[in-house]
Amino acid sequence: MNELITTLRSIVGHAQVLTHDDPATDLSAWEQDWRKRLRGRALAVVRPGHTAEVAAVVKACAAAGVSIVPQGGNTGLVVGSVPDDSGTQVVLSLTRMNAVRAIDGDNLTMTVEAGCVLQVLQETAEKAGYLFPLSLAAEGSCTIGGNLATNAGGTQVVRYGNARELCLGLEVVTAQGEVWNGLSGLRKDNTGYDLRDLFVGSEGTLGVITAATMKLYPLPAAQLTAWAAVPSLEAAVQLLGLAHRHLGAGLTGFEVMGRFALSLVAKHFPQQRVPLWADHPYCVLLENSDSESEDHARGQFERLLETAFENGVVSDAVVAENLSQAHALWHIRESIPLAQAEEGLNIKHDISIPVSKIPAFCAETDALLQREIPGVRLVNFGHLGDGNLHYNVQAPEGGDPATFLREQEERVNHLVFDQVARFEGSISAEHGVGSLKVDKLPDYKDPVALALMRSIKQALDPQNILNPGRVLR
Amino acid sequence: MNELITTLRSIVGHAQVLTHDDPATDLSAWEQDWRKRLRGRALAVVRPGHTAEVAAVVKACAAAGVSIVPQGGNTGLVVGSVPDDSGTQVVLSLTRMNAVRAIDGDNLTMTVEAGCVLQVLQETAEKAGYLFPLSLAAEGSCTIGGNLATNAGGTQVVRYGNARELCLGLEVVTAQGEVWNGLSGLRKDNTGYDLRDLFVGSEGTLGVITAATMKLYPLPAAQLTAWAAVPSLEAAVQLLGLAHRHLGAGLTGFEVMGRFALSLVAKHFPQQRVPLWADHPYCVLLENSDSESEDHARGQFERLLETAFENGVVSDAVVAENLSQAHALWHIRESIPLAQAEEGLNIKHDISIPVSKIPAFCAETDALLQREIPGVRLVNFGHLGDGNLHYNVQAPEGGDPATFLREQEERVNHLVFDQVARFEGSISAEHGVGSLKVDKLPDYKDPVALALMRSIKQALDPQNILNPGRVLR
Repeated sequence: MNELITTLRSIVGHAQVLTHDDPATDLSAWEQDWRKRLRGRALAVVRPGHTAEVAAVVKACAAAGVSIVPQGGNTGLVVGSVPDDSGTQVVLSLTRMNAVRAIDGDNLTMTVEAGCVLQVLQETAEKAGYLFPLSLAAEGSCTIGGNLATNAGGTQVVRYGNARELCLGLEVVTAQGEVWNGLSGLRKDNTGYDLRDLFVGSEGTLGVITAATMKLYPLPAAQLTAWAAVPSLEAAVQLLGLAHRHLGAGLTGFEVMGRFALSLVAKHFPQQRVPLWADHPYCVLLENSDSESEDHARGQFERLLETAFENGVVSDAVVAENLSQAHALWHIRESIPLAQAEEGLNIKHDISIPVSKIPAFCAETDALLQREIPGVRLVNFGHLGDGNLHYNVQAPEGGDPATFLREQEERVNHLVFDQVARFEGSISAEHGVGSLKVDKLPDYKDPVALALMRSIKQALDPQNILNPGRVLR
Repeated sequence: MNELITTLRSIVGHAQVLTHDDPATDLSAWEQDWRKRLRGRALAVVRPGHTAEVAAVVKACAAAGVSIVPQGGNTGLVVGSVPDDSGTQVVLSLTRMNAVRAIDGDNLTMTVEAGCVLQVLQETAEKAGYLFPLSLAAEGSCTIGGNLATNAGGTQVVRYGNARELCLGLEVVTAQGEVWNGLSGLRKDNTGYDLRDLFVGSEGTLGVITAATMKLYPLPAAQLTAWAAVPSLEAAVQLLGLAHRHLGAGLTGFEVMGRFALSLVAKHFPQQRVPLWADHPYCVLLENSDSESEDHARGQFERLLETAFENGVVSDAVVAENLSQAHALWHIRESIPLAQAEEGLNIKHDISIPVSKIPAFCAETDALLQREIPGVRLVNFGHLGDGNLHYNVQAPEGGDPATFLREQEERVNHLVFDQVARFEGSISAEHGVGSLKVDKLPDYKDPVALALMRSIKQALDPQNILNPGRVLR
């Protein structure tokens, strides 16, 4: 091991290999996961500065038979980017590789290194006059490499897709320490298997993403936000259909929030004025991005909402008058997880269901959970435009949250995931598998798919040195 | 072999196994490729009627060690879906599997079998009130299974992406004859490796696609077409940027056509009135799909073209007044390959280059070819919005096309492909590899990528029974 550490220091420089040998060094930022579910222990944290160093590090680790945990901003929610507690794994932190290598306006692309922070990329693109549309809660600290490794989603997927859809090309270090130069600004390239999309979403188990070419879009001329109360989840789905028809690709956000979820924001953050929540079972947040003008966007919203009123699909609605009102509405949506935390620990789910089946899924699953755990409270909200719900389960009023979590989490997960399977959904829509859900996959994933995944892992990483035990056991 | 034929007949029924034993049976529709470059000879053509039969056929062939060539409409352009001339391969024709299994309007998806003809799917979607946007020249006879196996492109990629981007889930029979049920109406599912996108574009070498869930879109309220003459290819690229900004996602088509390409249409199809071609080096065809109204689309086009005139990016332009004028303009674009054929055999390329580099690529490559083959004529046209050119090379005026093709094809390919590599492009943008380009890949594909592809092929099809010799040798 000492020999490996010496080799690693010779590759990346002494200062870029952090170990527990120096008692003054605190590695918790790399060893502890975002939600503080697991504290691992690394053999070393290695911070290469460019791709050749990453390749050399992987080669050295492979030669030593030491496994590697690639890490970006370490903001993942499924314990996929921290070492296990063995003290034998190398954390390969990509955060020093944070150069924007190129912006190509005519080609609508930018080529960036894995360690670039998402928000920095949004701002870099905007300064150059373009939109980089990937947007999610952790954008201030997550990195594009991690976004790609986990195929991150977020709030604009309904229009722009997940991280995968925004990626045109990758540079990847393989498990053998070879560099695949697959950076590409091409929108069409049919010269073989789609390696790009295989590495995207593989959570660092097949290769280490070191750089990527991402799509850019023209900046919209205007962006408007509306908040609509709907009489039911069925109505929310109908409103989504109307919004697709009226706004076309202008529809860049469609979030749904249940009454109880909004009541928690109203209760714990009374300074936030939550509109319309008290008298309606669900509210919807819509965003319209327009290539023409704010007036045009407003006209479109008005026509959409008029039609929706006439059809009984919307009960009441407000359109933000200005940017600060729009931000305030989005802030309510983003405050739901924090309000939930204030209310106490809860059981979180990140599921997707075909949009058409969401009303039936919720009706059945709500009733099932109420039967099984009387008084249970459901914090249901999410990206309805993508069929993605954060269907969270909170202890009954007055119950002790910690006890609830300890006693009910397994059972509730089982009940919810079985329902997800019945409705042809996914038990992990946007957060990934990591180590948190790896033992659930055999119960809910097609066995042929699992066998194919194992074959691919075995083919590309026969030594099993890349993030072992994540995605696949 | 006779034993295998008997087994296959017991699986799919006697009538659905066609062989040369019956001299009255003409198998050329399955044995001859679309461009008549190769006439193979099959052991048998097998036509299963549902997925379980496909699985049983693959199992039987695998047990007998007989390789399989999956086939849809057999309209591919790279000799990827016909048997070799050994008489030992089974052609697995999917055309009988042509059911639309489901249309889910609220989820904006349809689930269809591999043998569905593309145009039938377009019409089926439209009848249900939706747009299925994949559109290409062979749509009257190609099948969605083949479109997915080759990741087909076409004329609306600038907005909707290639076949891969339109696919949410697949049903696939593996090389072992297992059925992977990966049909999914989900827009977000991060439960493991992206098998879907691995099978899409693998040209039948990794598995047999038997069904797919595809995305639908709302039908646009209006679709307008404009034809603009531009002073240069640089101007065409600038016009593309302006069109992205002005039309946003309304820009659903952006085709470029060189003067010589248009002159061939004017010469060989004089009944077609080609506008503006004679006095300008390039013309551009733009399509604007609008979710509001024809008036709105027209206003947008007018503002775009005004700005383009002011910037000197457009020299002259017409906007189609009605649908029949729009069809006539598209018909000119679609007639270029036919006009070329009238002029005589030529050397075809299907290349892509980052959009920003296309002007320099064409300037350099045009000059290079003129130097190497004085008088050579370049038929340059294609999907500029995707960076995809059909950069075709025609014999000098008066030269014998057949002699030219025989003597110059290898050399011209070499010159053009080397240029493509210099400009970081792809030697096959949308047509795939098949057997026509399989021997070129080692020269132009990253060696690490090729090694990864071989590992994956070996892992998923260790017997090499699925379309051997295609994509990879």
